[in-house]
Amino acid sequence: MSTEKKHTISVLVDNHFGVLARVSGMFSTRGFNITSLCVGETADARYSRMTVVVLADDAALGQVIQQLNKLIEVIDVVDLTSESFVERELVMAKVKASGKERGEVIELASIFRAKVVDVGAQYMTVECTGAAGKISAFIDTIRGYGIEDLVRSGEIAIARSPK
Amino acid sequence: MSTEKKHTISVLVDNHFGVLARVSGMFSTRGFNITSLCVGETADARYSRMTVVVLADDAALGQVIQQLNKLIEVIDVVDLTSESFVERELVMAKVKASGKERGEVIELASIFRAKVVDVGAQYMTVECTGAAGKISAFIDTIRGYGIEDLVRSGEIAIARSPK
Repeated sequence: MSTEKKHTISVLVDNHFGVLARVSGMFSTRGFNITSLCVGETADARYSRMTVVVLADDAALGQVIQQLNKLIEVIDVVDLTSESFVERELVMAKVKASGKERGEVIELASIFRAKVVDVGAQYMTVECTGAAGKISAFIDTIRGYGIEDLVRSGEIAIARSPK
Repeated sequence: MSTEKKHTISVLVDNHFGVLARVSGMFSTRGFNITSLCVGETADARYSRMTVVVLADDAALGQVIQQLNKLIEVIDVVDLTSESFVERELVMAKVKASGKERGEVIELASIFRAKVVDVGAQYMTVECTGAAGKISAFIDTIRGYGIEDLVRSGEIAIARSPK
């Protein structure tokens, strides 16, 4: 029986080239499949934060986290899964919509608090933000119109503050 | 004189482990610094889409794109920079705010159409979506309160539709 479950890992790293390949390589050489990964600068441009979502066994992941902590470019590694955290993802989808379908897509978008960001002769592009479950529901809802293109940012996460 | 400029590259890849490390390695072994990178599943779970933002010289980047196209796991590579495209990024920031500062942060958030996603005794977490310029302006605006933690998704991008 597999004991794999979804883990959300937040890794603070030096903003240098090579760090991303090294960290993602740590997961892939162990055969972990990364569901999503984001990396962007933090408020201090010297550092970047990576958010990695991975399906993994607790023990195997614990070893990877230990290895990551040994890398000189890695400043901090947190497995948010054991904490209370807010997760969000951004998606943009280009769907087939012309004529009366445009109104339908706008209506569906409003239910998900999604925004239309581009309209062409045959397609509309809609952006939506939310937790992974909401994003999946949104994608399933618009799938019927025909998705021409879809880009997900992958999940970003931040620990909740003490109340 | 440097001829480096910002490029936004969209790479459609097989959803297998190892692809991410291989693609990011292609950039880092050539000394390109990746400003941001996102990878997430597409509407078809067999494929993932990576959005890579990189500062690079046109000629040097052209070579990397050629190399990427030769990888068996890479289905398509587009340098969106030469096209008209919509770019969006998601950011979550945890700022110091208690008492009357809470109202101030809520007001600033509303100007940027940002949303409060968590409130604690000493901190508030706010999410904001937009093009890179808006995100930078938002971060600069809240910086005065003290940013405890900040996560950016990195940019995702989609080509505009013919009108």
